[in-house]
Order: sequence, then structure tokens, then C-alpha cells
Amino acid sequence: MATSSSHSAHGDLLTERSGRVAAARKLTRRAGREAAGLFLAEGRQAVVEALVRPDGVREVFATEAAAVGHRDLLAGTTVPVRLVTEKAAAGLSETVTPQGLVAVCTLRDVPAGSLTAAPPRLAVALAELADPGNAGTVLRTADACGAGAVVFGAGSADPYGGKAVRSSAGSLFHVDVVRGAPLEALLPALRAAGVTVLAADGGGEAQLPELADDGRLAGPVLWLFGNEARGVPAELAALADARVRIPMRGRAESLNLAAAAAICLYTTQLAQG
Amino acid sequence: MATSSSHSAHGDLLTERSGRVAAARKLTRRAGREAAGLFLAEGRQAVVEALVRPDGVREVFATEAAAVGHRDLLAGTTVPVRLVTEKAAAGLSETVTPQGLVAVCTLRDVPAGSLTAAPPRLAVALAELADPGNAGTVLRTADACGAGAVVFGAGSADPYGGKAVRSSAGSLFHVDVVRGAPLEALLPALRAAGVTVLAADGGGEAQLPELADDGRLAGPVLWLFGNEARGVPAELAALADARVRIPMRGRAESLNLAAAAAICLYTTQLAQG
Repeated sequence: MATSSSHSAHGDLLTERSGRVAAARKLTRRAGREAAGLFLAEGRQAVVEALVRPDGVREVFATEAAAVGHRDLLAGTTVPVRLVTEKAAAGLSETVTPQGLVAVCTLRDVPAGSLTAAPPRLAVALAELADPGNAGTVLRTADACGAGAVVFGAGSADPYGGKAVRSSAGSLFHVDVVRGAPLEALLPALRAAGVTVLAADGGGEAQLPELADDGRLAGPVLWLFGNEARGVPAELAALADARVRIPMRGRAESLNLAAAAAICLYTTQLAQG
Repeated sequence: MATSSSHSAHGDLLTERSGRVAAARKLTRRAGREAAGLFLAEGRQAVVEALVRPDGVREVFATEAAAVGHRDLLAGTTVPVRLVTEKAAAGLSETVTPQGLVAVCTLRDVPAGSLTAAPPRLAVALAELADPGNAGTVLRTADACGAGAVVFGAGSADPYGGKAVRSSAGSLFHVDVVRGAPLEALLPALRAAGVTVLAADGGGEAQLPELADDGRLAGPVLWLFGNEARGVPAELAALADARVRIPMRGRAESLNLAAAAAICLYTTQLAQG
């Protein structure tokens, strides 16, 4: 473990007042992340995934207990590991029970142009998705179903926030992330590139099982999901090849956004074989 | 609206110190709900669903603003509506932005015996499901997919807690709720009654698409979902007809529990036609 010698002695831990820790704490806020081009990945699962590409990790903060508990993980890395107090680690955490292990990572955005240049077989775009937990969950589900990219449109939750990173359960490091792309320009460009753009819409004219049957899910597909309460903005839904509803046998008015996304993405994975 | 005249005049609202409000506030805790046999349903959507069966609603608390905003809903009901201060309403709320409208409802449990006596075509059982938001989301998804009942096994989150009720988006009032049934007895009893019991299990021997193809989803089915981190307890999974995994094309280790449940339940709905 590349612990700098000045911090490895017992009692010589970085506190919450150290410059490094104070700088990292700014990354718990969106403005701080944008200014530094960095974000925090907390907990073993996220740090494992982050360290797969060590050039994307600036440093790792660990409490003494975490450094011992995760010795296997930290021993092999070339990334600097800084020992910190429990209080300093808690200040970098957005969870009730801080895990004492946090990696400082560079933002992983790729340009929207990479999507249109080589569209993945499956991709997701989020329009005004509000809840960070949903952002992370959709990332995780998209990854599970083999999606190559997730686009976070304007007004969507930040996938680099603590709650989103945690909900993504490491998938943030598996999938290309595109942010800030104007969806009203990107969606037509993707259609022109041969991608079938589908908007999930409880009032849509197409039913999901039809699409699975008629082959529209076979080629490259981008699923567009919207806000938890308001759905996909009408002007964006109008740009899709189809607006798609999930048939429901029961009495619920609608599905939770992450549940609907899971059904759409899994159905597409199956249809794509 | 059956507002009692002593509370309808401006300035004569129930405060957080009134006996009725204090009694209702105890329902924000599980022990208080069990002692009283009552729970709180907050917000318009939940109150609309609750008032479909007025005999299951003891009273409704509303701020003056909510009473005006929801006049259409409250005018027709025989249930007493009590006007309360904003502060009193906030004390009954578990949300950051209280909605000012809360119904006091009787617990809706049905006995486990009703499930074995007349098994619904689709049902769900939860073993040690920890997160109240997931409990509500699974209820909502189960309802959407036409499930008749959801069983909350020992150690599962309480479906009557504020967060669970909110996440269920009204579906708590559509589906039979069974609590406290020992699953180790209920699962064999359901199998004996002709129900196919399936445990969702990332390491399961059966794949979901096989089940859809070989007809095992056609008859009455009960899906068993487990803890978010640990999955279905092994001793319960062993009691199922099959342990079922969802095939994943991508790199995520697993799906979020609510996402996995959505995929399993939707696939079953489709297979049942």
C-alpha cells in the first residue's frame, strides 16, 4: 500500500482540518465536483471498481480500521492511500454508517459525439430524472442489461453524487456516462445514426410486448426515461420512434420509474438475444 | 365535509398538543401502530385510495390549505375531517414537504389462511426485506402486475410505515397484506395448495426465461424475494419449487431488489396472459 510514511504511524492520521480532506469534502457537493473535475466513490464495491482503472483515481482515504479490513484491496494499488481519522472519513460520507473507505476519482464523462459515432446496442437517456437513488439504480440496471451508455440530460440528478454512486453499486464504472447533452439535438442525431429511440410513457401508443414481437428492439435501441412524477417531457417524447407503455393487469396507476426501466431494459436484452 | 363545528372556524384548529393529534403521532412508530391497530396514509393519492373503503378510515387530518385544495375529495366523505395546524400536520408526516392531508386507517392485514384457502394467481412473499421504500415499491409493482397478495415475513420492513405507504403509491389499498406468517410453514402449505413457489436468487439453478417458456409461470405463482444484501435465506429458498436467476448480459454483479422483482413479476404477468 503506497501510504506516505508521514501518515502511516499511529496517531498521525489526516484530520478533517487537513487540506486534502477539506478539498475532498467539497466533492460532496455538485459545484465542488464540477470545479475540481472529481467525485467520491465510497465503500469497498465502488473502490474495487474504481481501482480497475488506477489512472482515474487520484487518491484513496481510509480509516485505520478500513485500511486493515481492506488490506487485500489496497496493498496492490499504485494509488496513494491516505490514512484519516474516523471523523474525517465521516465528513466524506453521505451514508448513516460511513464505511471509512473513499476514493477520489476523476469524472468519467464521455462526449455525446461518441454515442452517435458508434451507437451501442443498448443505451439509456434520462430526462429530468430527479432522484439520485433512481439515477444510480437505473445505471445499475442498464449495466446489468448490457447497456453501453447512459445519458443524463439537463435537469437530471447527478450520477456522481454520493447517493447515486452508492445506488449504482459499481455500475457507474462500467458504463459510459454522458452529461449535459441537449437531448432535443441528440435524439434526432441518434435516429439518423440508425438507433431506435423509445420513450417510456404510461400513455404511449405502443405496448412493450408488441415491440418485442415486431423486431423493433433488435437493432441499436435507446430508451428515454423521464421525471418520476411528470414522465418524459412531451417535446422529447415527440422526437422518439415510439412512445411505449408497459401493460398492467392490476390496479396500480403506474410503475415506479426504476421498476419500469428494469422491465423495458430486460425486455430489450432478451429481444437482442 | 363532516368537519366538527368546533374546529371549522378559523383559528380553532387542532394543534400538535391536542389528544387526537398526539394519539395519531404515535402511529408514526411501529409499536404505536401495533398497539392501536391503525396507520397513517399521507397525501392525496393515499387518501383517495383509503376513502374507497370508508369503514377502514377512522378520521382525516387536513390543514386549512389542504382542506381547500382537496375539497372535491373531502366533501363527499362520511369520515370525520379534522382541521389541524401546519405544525400538527408536519408532526404526522415523514416527508420533507408535508402534504397537510393524512388519513388514520385501520391495519388491513388478512390471515395467511386466506391465501392457502384460495390462492391468487400471483402473490409475493418478502423474507427479511429491510428497506421500507423497497417494501412499498414491491407492493406497487405487485399490484401493477395483478398480484392478489403480498406476504411480509418476519424481519421484513413494515408496509404500514410512512415511507412504505408513500412508496406503494396507493397500492397498499389494492392488495391483500399478510404479516407475521412463518414462511417456513406457509410456503409448503401453498405448494400443497397447487401454487408454484419461486425464490428469486442470483445464484439460482433456473433461468427466468426458461420458466416463461416451459409453462411453470402459467398456474398460481408465488414469488419469494429476500434481503437487499443477503438475498433469500437459504432455508427458505430450499422450500421453493425453483431458485430463479435473471440472466444479465452486462457487468453488474446483481440487480437492485425492486428492479429484480419488477422483472420477475412482469414476466409472470405476461406468461399468465
